Amino acid sequence: MKAHIHIPKPGKHVQLSDYDPEEDGGYDKETAQAETDQLQEHIFDLQERLYAQGTQALLVVLQAMDTGGKDGAIRKVFQGINPQGVRVTAFKVPSAEELAHDFLWRVHQHVPPKGCIGIFNRSHYEDVLVPVVNQIVPPKVWKGRYNHINAFERLLTETGTRVIKFYLHIDRAEQKRRLEERLENPDKQWKFSMGDLPVREKWDDYMRAYEDAITECNTESAPWVIVPANKKWYRDLVIARALVDTLESMKPEFPPPEPGLDKVVIPD
Amino acid sequence: MKAHIHIPKPGKHVQLSDYDPEEDGGYDKETAQAETDQLQEHIFDLQERLYAQGTQALLVVLQAMDTGGKDGAIRKVFQGINPQGVRVTAFKVPSAEELAHDFLWRVHQHVPPKGCIGIFNRSHYEDVLVPVVNQIVPPKVWKGRYNHINAFERLLTETGTRVIKFYLHIDRAEQKRRLEERLENPDKQWKFSMGDLPVREKWDDYMRAYEDAITECNTESAPWVIVPANKKWYRDLVIARALVDTLESMKPEFPPPEPGLDKVVIPD
Repeated sequence: MKAHIHIPKPGKHVQLSDYDPEEDGGYDKETAQAETDQLQEHIFDLQERLYAQGTQALLVVLQAMDTGGKDGAIRKVFQGINPQGVRVTAFKVPSAEELAHDFLWRVHQHVPPKGCIGIFNRSHYEDVLVPVVNQIVPPKVWKGRYNHINAFERLLTETGTRVIKFYLHIDRAEQKRRLEERLENPDKQWKFSMGDLPVREKWDDYMRAYEDAITECNTESAPWVIVPANKKWYRDLVIARALVDTLESMKPEFPPPEPGLDKVVIPD
Repeated sequence: MKAHIHIPKPGKHVQLSDYDPEEDGGYDKETAQAETDQLQEHIFDLQERLYAQGTQALLVVLQAMDTGGKDGAIRKVFQGINPQGVRVTAFKVPSAEELAHDFLWRVHQHVPPKGCIGIFNRSHYEDVLVPVVNQIVPPKVWKGRYNHINAFERLLTETGTRVIKFYLHIDRAEQKRRLEERLENPDKQWKFSMGDLPVREKWDDYMRAYEDAITECNTESAPWVIVPANKKWYRDLVIARALVDTLESMKPEFPPPEPGLDKVVIPD
């Protein structure tokens, strides 16, 4: 059994209805969690080498509808990693200063330095979702943004930073269940925001905006992974598996020691 | 049994030779690690509340001689925490732009936002150590820096960020053992730097500079903890215990839900 990593073929138009949010690859919860734990050990080991090597970085982008599981995936997949080599950035509504710059300005500041893994909880992709659905900017502007994003991600990948983007795919019914859970569970009520409801109303518009964004910005070097995310344990497994594949392909290795180490004597 | 947290009395001159780097509080390794694991669970729970609450932050400063265990303590104590609520900043030799500003400028940019724990691997205290030992700046300048540091830390504590500072206390003989281990272990050789040797030569000068810095900047609101650090498992236990004490005293709680949640119905 191996979790399937859905990476649409670059250039092909993506339809999210082609992907089943309930998919679980034939796993049950226990088997999936055991495999995720094993994959995490690999991630931790690979991350240590990446950090020691200090010549490459990895940028992980997480996008989803509200309740889609971005926070949960970060906690479950990355909890246990050495926090020194990881940096999570959660992008909220832009500040006045951020709005006074191009839409990639604030994002660029938070890309990971060499040796590190950067995780974006939401990202520059918000700028081809929210304004598109709410028609805040004209089509000419947001269509231009796809090119800017592709150029930006190419800059990163060609200068030593791998980019992998995850769309956590839940359906409307699952979102309803999760919003209701937030309403009912006192430890989760703080996560509930009235602002999530008008966004839910535009579900279909968001799906279309996501399909366009994923289609236009799905490249060989910075691919999108569509993650079946109704089942949280399968979501975590798919993300962990894709990260191991990516990190392994980067071949991080401990760097060679400074020359002459064999002759060094430490004085008392 | 309870690990003792050494916080010198503010105002009292600190002498590091009064503290035994070999201290283990009567613990053996296994008992210490089991207790550290339990304390970590508390830290993770308290951190989740701190994050949810979003009104307070915690800044953890780690200082030590080379091989003192800053990286190890970060990995051991914080590995397992939700990376979304933690940010580690390792301060290296200042850049040209950083040097063109006051010494607190680069540090200020990395203090944790509300809801988060910030960890400084080295810090503004380097600016009252390296230049002092190497007599790069005149005494008038570095003595003035103590006041600047105290005012800066007072700014943080009075505006919602708790500050706790750890000095990881190893002795010269332990440093020798650890440097030799780096030389011998292929997976650790990358950590060995020839530059550590001239620093080791000035061990006694560094001890004096640390004693002065800890004495002058040890305040009720931003205390220094002197951590016996020859035994790594006791070091981790002391840090974890001090963090639990600190976080508990901050009383982080899940915030109240938005009003009217009980009347919300999620539409299909």
